[in-house]
Amino acid sequence: MSDSALDALIEGLRSLPGVGQKSAQRMAYHLLQHDRAGAVRLARALDLAVSEIGHCTRCHTFSREPVCEVCQDEARERQLLCVVETPADQAALERTGSYKGLYFVLMGRLSPLDGLGVRDIGMGGLMTRATDGVVTEVILATNFTAEGETTAHVLAEQLRSRGLKVTRLARGVPVGSELEYVDLGTIAHAFLDRR
Amino acid sequence: MSDSALDALIEGLRSLPGVGQKSAQRMAYHLLQHDRAGAVRLARALDLAVSEIGHCTRCHTFSREPVCEVCQDEARERQLLCVVETPADQAALERTGSYKGLYFVLMGRLSPLDGLGVRDIGMGGLMTRATDGVVTEVILATNFTAEGETTAHVLAEQLRSRGLKVTRLARGVPVGSELEYVDLGTIAHAFLDRR
Repeated sequence: MSDSALDALIEGLRSLPGVGQKSAQRMAYHLLQHDRAGAVRLARALDLAVSEIGHCTRCHTFSREPVCEVCQDEARERQLLCVVETPADQAALERTGSYKGLYFVLMGRLSPLDGLGVRDIGMGGLMTRATDGVVTEVILATNFTAEGETTAHVLAEQLRSRGLKVTRLARGVPVGSELEYVDLGTIAHAFLDRR
Repeated sequence: MSDSALDALIEGLRSLPGVGQKSAQRMAYHLLQHDRAGAVRLARALDLAVSEIGHCTRCHTFSREPVCEVCQDEARERQLLCVVETPADQAALERTGSYKGLYFVLMGRLSPLDGLGVRDIGMGGLMTRATDGVVTEVILATNFTAEGETTAHVLAEQLRSRGLKVTRLARGVPVGSELEYVDLGTIAHAFLDRR
């Protein structure tokens, strides 16, 4: 059974991250056999997203407007700028309801092994944004992975050299966890950052 | 960051089998950030597939034509009909180059627990197809899983009651494998079906 329309669909699905030949085939068969309405909805959503969604000119997150809702929000504390890697990270912080400042979304992280340098994370844009004269403190909330820590380190140096106060989210023992099962690096940091 | 176009895209991607909220979010961010051309290609492929691909009227596989290429092929042995669960299974058999008959694709399997009965696998269509007066032998090539075996069992009963010769792909030790590592059920079958 060779069919160019089916092959094109399988090929198209393979452009999704984490989807190989077998998964793409399974997805294509599923859509055609059980969910053609879902396939049409997905096609429309892709078209709409590609044509309408750009980046917020202030924080770089995905946005249909030139300035996103969060950056437009007058109730936000404009002297605080929290730097995150992705919109998903931003969403996780927002869900806590514990932060009322603004954000800058890097849309990536420094990853020399993958060829991702300071330009790929828009460091120039961050420096311009952070030195607007209103921001006084930059909170680095990149992930606590090797790449996230490297990114935080590099950004901290650059931001401090511009006279900004730079802080990092606290490392420590997760709420609700038993010490016996917490990894050593985390406990060591919890000792260092004890208060 | 709440954005209806982005939410619609994430929701659309979740209709793919095996894709949950987190994966859909990651896929959406990837497409918007790194592969907008891929997103557009996928949208076009979905539209084309949904509008053009139907089912072969003879073997039920996916096909743009009313009768698929395999069923149209004059060189095929028309007295042999091989029953498979999915087009992927058919493709696997075709790759061996060892079968020159025709196919019937169930587009599923009997699965009472999932509420899939004889109508969902088009058993009526298979009976009509198999009793066309040309087919003399039906080879059951459903998977060797519990559901595939059940399907084969039910189909075999129905087909035999219509006077057709019904066979099943041989079970046995896979080519290239060492007996020490082959599971007991397979070895037991290899004993029973020894030749």
